Amino acid sequence: MSDNRPIGIFDSGVGGLTVVKEVAAAMPFENIVYFGDTARVPYGSKSKDTVTKFSVQIVKYLLKKNVKAIVVACNTVSANCYEELTKIFTDTPIFEMVSFGVKAGLEATSSQRIGVIGTEATIRSNAYERAFYDAAADITVFSKACPLFVPLAEEGWTENSVAEITSEIYLQELLDKEIDALVLGCTHYPLLLNCIHRAVGSVKVVNPAVRAAAEIKTFLSTANMLAECVQHDRKLSFFVSDFTAKFNRISKVVLGKAHIAEKVDLEV
Amino acid sequence: MSDNRPIGIFDSGVGGLTVVKEVAAAMPFENIVYFGDTARVPYGSKSKDTVTKFSVQIVKYLLKKNVKAIVVACNTVSANCYEELTKIFTDTPIFEMVSFGVKAGLEATSSQRIGVIGTEATIRSNAYERAFYDAAADITVFSKACPLFVPLAEEGWTENSVAEITSEIYLQELLDKEIDALVLGCTHYPLLLNCIHRAVGSVKVVNPAVRAAAEIKTFLSTANMLAECVQHDRKLSFFVSDFTAKFNRISKVVLGKAHIAEKVDLEV
Repeated sequence: MSDNRPIGIFDSGVGGLTVVKEVAAAMPFENIVYFGDTARVPYGSKSKDTVTKFSVQIVKYLLKKNVKAIVVACNTVSANCYEELTKIFTDTPIFEMVSFGVKAGLEATSSQRIGVIGTEATIRSNAYERAFYDAAADITVFSKACPLFVPLAEEGWTENSVAEITSEIYLQELLDKEIDALVLGCTHYPLLLNCIHRAVGSVKVVNPAVRAAAEIKTFLSTANMLAECVQHDRKLSFFVSDFTAKFNRISKVVLGKAHIAEKVDLEV
Repeated sequence: MSDNRPIGIFDSGVGGLTVVKEVAAAMPFENIVYFGDTARVPYGSKSKDTVTKFSVQIVKYLLKKNVKAIVVACNTVSANCYEELTKIFTDTPIFEMVSFGVKAGLEATSSQRIGVIGTEATIRSNAYERAFYDAAADITVFSKACPLFVPLAEEGWTENSVAEITSEIYLQELLDKEIDALVLGCTHYPLLLNCIHRAVGSVKVVNPAVRAAAEIKTFLSTANMLAECVQHDRKLSFFVSDFTAKFNRISKVVLGKAHIAEKVDLEV
């Protein structure tokens, strides 16, 4: 038994490409359809209502593409709208990032003191805190919104002094709490991995997408929903709500190849 | 003869409040209706088609508010969509920022070497260059997109080392060209005025909104369209497409008072 329909992955913009990277690496035969809402990015500074409305439009679009499962790459959507999405769309498995970030974070910490960074909307939602406290009573979670990380990553300033100092300013507060693991609660943040590593020293840095890809593979395998192991190349398809050169540039940085995205209009 | 209908001002988000400030100061009896597209901000990294679509929706909304004139505070819209807007909406005077920035820039320069900074979309449009070259044959214009300035201003990092270094990195290229005047081609940038001043030293810094407010006043006066000089307070009304605490915080910084904005939905 196999299922060659694509996996749908979506994000507010280009950041979700870091999730595509991990899913594509873990499941080399899977077709993937990606949607990035580049016309309305960023979600992280917007309200729950607005982000929910946008997400529902995108899931409907992906379902029209005949996807077998949906991965909410965006942590802001994961943190604010996942329950709503699973209530509306009951026929398709939907995965989100927060639960995988929590599982990986719990494995990484020894001191039970964990830091979480994300967008304003993700941090304000307290979704990571709630999930951590539900999973482990003895954990202490410290969270911090880092709104400049997304524009820095998109500007390509991932290694310069501005990225260094910004990382130090944002992360010092978490270091003062003596965390020993840090969850990257935003798909853009793996692009700043080197700076973040330097800023936090020996603290273990956790990218939820790595764990997500492994667990989604297990789920699809158990459900007999993995694609066939065929010789020809699987297809990665990219759709965006606005076309900008940034997509090509960042897809090259993240995926090693400048993929072309097709522009589609969801607001019709 | 007088006209007490409000002046409509719009921007992609909260940045246009710096234009409200200048218009309100120059015309103390005018009612003002402001719309900030906070659900879809920023415009500066988006395509002309997308920004035009959003702008048309907003102008229609302001016209329903019975405005007598419209001020396109957003430089990205001014640079990319002004002609389109004046073709569609022929019954209401519409003002944009670029022409005022150019007039003020030409008065500020002695060396005829001028710098312009703005969002990616504003700079990519070459609207400032074209307007400068149309106005003065002997001028030389150097432009530079500064995409991190908007998120820095919104984060409130307007005086720290990150803002300092970012200003120095972005503006050094223009200083190397020996400009003697710099036009702030984005409504957010006046929030970073101190850092920008320090980075450019003796170069004159031009805020187009100051000139815009003076010229709009002259236009309304000539057309007998100024509001009556009444004793009671004029009304400033604020509408946004998404409600966030940021609006209150930045309105306090810019206008000296935390105004409350009403959330409205344009995408229906």
